[in-house]
Amino acid sequence: MEKAVTFTESATGVRNIKLTVAYDGTAYHGFQRQANACGIQAILEERLATLCGHPVKINGAGRTDSGVHAYGQVVNFFTGTGGIPTEKIPAAMQGLLPPDIVIREACEVPAEFHARYSAQSKVYVYHIYCQPVANPFYRNYSWHIRQSLDHLAMHQAAQIIVGTHNFSAFQAAGGPERNPVRTILEASCRPRGELLEFSFWGTGFLYHMVRNLVGTLVDVGTGKRSVNDVARILAGQDRRQAGITAPPQGLYLKEVYY
Amino acid sequence: MEKAVTFTESATGVRNIKLTVAYDGTAYHGFQRQANACGIQAILEERLATLCGHPVKINGAGRTDSGVHAYGQVVNFFTGTGGIPTEKIPAAMQGLLPPDIVIREACEVPAEFHARYSAQSKVYVYHIYCQPVANPFYRNYSWHIRQSLDHLAMHQAAQIIVGTHNFSAFQAAGGPERNPVRTILEASCRPRGELLEFSFWGTGFLYHMVRNLVGTLVDVGTGKRSVNDVARILAGQDRRQAGITAPPQGLYLKEVYY
Repeated sequence: MEKAVTFTESATGVRNIKLTVAYDGTAYHGFQRQANACGIQAILEERLATLCGHPVKINGAGRTDSGVHAYGQVVNFFTGTGGIPTEKIPAAMQGLLPPDIVIREACEVPAEFHARYSAQSKVYVYHIYCQPVANPFYRNYSWHIRQSLDHLAMHQAAQIIVGTHNFSAFQAAGGPERNPVRTILEASCRPRGELLEFSFWGTGFLYHMVRNLVGTLVDVGTGKRSVNDVARILAGQDRRQAGITAPPQGLYLKEVYY
Repeated sequence: MEKAVTFTESATGVRNIKLTVAYDGTAYHGFQRQANACGIQAILEERLATLCGHPVKINGAGRTDSGVHAYGQVVNFFTGTGGIPTEKIPAAMQGLLPPDIVIREACEVPAEFHARYSAQSKVYVYHIYCQPVANPFYRNYSWHIRQSLDHLAMHQAAQIIVGTHNFSAFQAAGGPERNPVRTILEASCRPRGELLEFSFWGTGFLYHMVRNLVGTLVDVGTGKRSVNDVARILAGQDRRQAGITAPPQGLYLKEVYY
């Protein structure tokens, strides 16, 4: 007797599985496969292949660079309906993955779901440890800045970028994006525990965009630039006018919305 | 002309320098020198010798085991009055030390000050990450427990150990201490952000005492033992009646008082 075909199971007996993945990016050369370096994608594909008994190709929602972290990276992959039950994947993968990569959640999604192309928006956060003396526990998880920063000025300057803009000024030099227009839905800077946390919620981000924004906003925090300067930099569409690229270890892909 | 001799400078021109040190213990085989393994003490002595231009021997306030961290370890050492100014030692050492060891503060102290023997009390904290799913960012900094824990019951049980007691029940099996009586001034368990934090303030601690206490208190948190059981275990002075030794990576030497 044939089973009814539901939205979670195509007629060919294939499941499309969405995983929410957290990782400490300190030890890795970024998310994507690279020729000579260890990427998180390659490890996930290798261990999922072990679990599923067939080669696995995953789609990731967002690239993260070397040293960048994720709390809510999303990937999807296809496997047969006969294998391990979807809800058991996180626990089973825990035995296969190194402890700095964790599958937080697994669920079945419609066949047409694609972790990257179906994403509607993403949240990135960036952590700054703003104290005269370094803290060894934050060294891989924040940007250490010894000068004091005016977080209200940085928050105010961050409001300049909210909306739909040409973000060429904050795109990596020689970045590959043909269309530099993106929409930022919310941007903030506030204290969180011992850290300052920037949060950017947007429909899309250019390469290095968050780190370039943070580098420029920190100049506002130190008083080197004004809120109006940020408006001029954004309007000028010239990367050379903006601040430095903030270091990778403060950046987290926090959440992806579908 | 001879300079006046102050409390910070003995007649022989020797400074006794107290350092407050924070370290991430993940990569180290504990604080103390060991024959074949890399200890934090050995690194500090080596780098201080480079800075001072002579061999340096430090006294540490407390041992920490492999994987155990410190936010406020205290050490002292002697050097001449002619070298680097005391207040410049933290910044100078930053260039010599690996980034997981930080000198937070340096000050001159009287010649008779000894980091260990002059200590009047210490605070240790212990972090538990109590969630069904692991968090890669806490893997080296907490004990991950999947079951839910009743932190009020654990806090209540922790009050049993406050005061002066024979702590044989919580001493490492075969521990070297001849006198197992110690005084705990304060003990607590409370939520702190995403973690549960135990805090123990005491005049002294036996080897593995905090980790053994936490292992037993967690049994109260899961309901396996009662608050009265803890009182019976303490009174029984038998290590075999207590719980397991909690893993090292949740433990921090937080502060030493003089």
